[in-house]
Amino acid sequence: MTHPFDDALALDLRNGRAVGRTTPDFANMVGPYGGLTAATILEAMSRHPDRVGDPVSLTVNFAAPIADGEFVVDTAIARTNRTNQHWTAQLSQDGDVKTTATAVYGVPRDTWADTEIAPPAAPDPEDCAPQDISSFVVWTRNYDMRFVSGSIPGAGEGPSPDSESTLWVRAHPDRPLDHPGLTAMCDVFYPRVFRRRAAYVPSGTISFTVYFHASAAELERQGADWVLATVRGQRFTGGFFDHTGTLWSRSGELLAVTHQLAYFKN
Amino acid sequence: MTHPFDDALALDLRNGRAVGRTTPDFANMVGPYGGLTAATILEAMSRHPDRVGDPVSLTVNFAAPIADGEFVVDTAIARTNRTNQHWTAQLSQDGDVKTTATAVYGVPRDTWADTEIAPPAAPDPEDCAPQDISSFVVWTRNYDMRFVSGSIPGAGEGPSPDSESTLWVRAHPDRPLDHPGLTAMCDVFYPRVFRRRAAYVPSGTISFTVYFHASAAELERQGADWVLATVRGQRFTGGFFDHTGTLWSRSGELLAVTHQLAYFKN
Repeated sequence: MTHPFDDALALDLRNGRAVGRTTPDFANMVGPYGGLTAATILEAMSRHPDRVGDPVSLTVNFAAPIADGEFVVDTAIARTNRTNQHWTAQLSQDGDVKTTATAVYGVPRDTWADTEIAPPAAPDPEDCAPQDISSFVVWTRNYDMRFVSGSIPGAGEGPSPDSESTLWVRAHPDRPLDHPGLTAMCDVFYPRVFRRRAAYVPSGTISFTVYFHASAAELERQGADWVLATVRGQRFTGGFFDHTGTLWSRSGELLAVTHQLAYFKN
Repeated sequence: MTHPFDDALALDLRNGRAVGRTTPDFANMVGPYGGLTAATILEAMSRHPDRVGDPVSLTVNFAAPIADGEFVVDTAIARTNRTNQHWTAQLSQDGDVKTTATAVYGVPRDTWADTEIAPPAAPDPEDCAPQDISSFVVWTRNYDMRFVSGSIPGAGEGPSPDSESTLWVRAHPDRPLDHPGLTAMCDVFYPRVFRRRAAYVPSGTISFTVYFHASAAELERQGADWVLATVRGQRFTGGFFDHTGTLWSRSGELLAVTHQLAYFKN
């Protein structure tokens, strides 16, 4: 049995192009889960024979919904330097561009190091209640989510004065964290506007960025353990909002930083 | 007399390509100021006859230093939707890729709006002392900068426990703020690692993102007035660090959000 995430991430290399296909497991409201699409594009770059180092930054722009079925990921190395490599990528269906992306890979070096911010206070994941919304949004079945604060607003709940959410999250079933897994997890937050409006207003990610901080040793230590994820919206205006988030190991290592711009209606 | 920023931003359209050239006014330690390069790429997209709406997000990856002289900016529209448009771009010299970029333009709509975060406390810009480092880094002569906190570490200053900086900044000489101007201003922060290490360690931006929140009316009101800019680093490790920043009008409007990943040595 392949893990559902690895099944969804599978790519065939045909004539120098990476060909994938959507899986029902990762269905979102429209098209597949954006975090999976971002992870798939990263996977296409990572599997390229000329790839150097590990991903350090990734930006994925969602131009149009991906239809059920096959898609093609075209990747190109724009430049290879001594300690980093610059990539561009596009995901298309029948020649129609659905997603654009850029990424930088880097070779980690031994330098001074410090984490300047701290994870939010949170009880142990074992002491938090699960919130299962997979009957509503299918892809969430691939994650265990336990909210510490800012869970998805329920019926009768009023608008919240802020859009902060903090949750424990891990792959379901267990899967050791790697760069594609971390990428997908960075998009796990439901749209911040839901919380502010206490309503499921139409909303979707337009531009999604991940800065990868976890070293290979940290990913190794992390394994399939819980990740503490926290996010907040900053400004909502003119049909767009941004959010900024961080993902932490249980022992307080900042694994990744993620930002996004989304559209919303109403 | 053209304004130095507009002089640096000038592009000739030749055979469907935008051709620009570096100007001595915006010289950085190596190559031109990255904020200017990002603004120039945005300008090339904005001047395209098929452009729809205003920029809402921009990501620029700096792959290699731009040499003094001419460069070419190639832009492509990946997709035009009803209310947004997706772009890719590359800046090259003699066929050599120096910079890659993606952007999304959007048509603002009348929606619910709120700013969830607040600007940092700061005295009026008129009560802050200017810090002139243009003898050291030429491009800074194009800005008036008045630090509220976290100014560039001076001789004999020790490492700081955090990398936060807040400053008032405006174009010098006066220039009304527009999207290219705001883009360039988002890169005004000196490398966070300088402050943490109290040393000018080699450092440079790899990936730079701007989310534009200012409406046309807000840019109009802003004119050439001071902008309050604040930034902090989050994690420094393995030769890379990220920072996150916000730019505010004097009356507390969040004009833009900016994030970046940079490399550093030592």
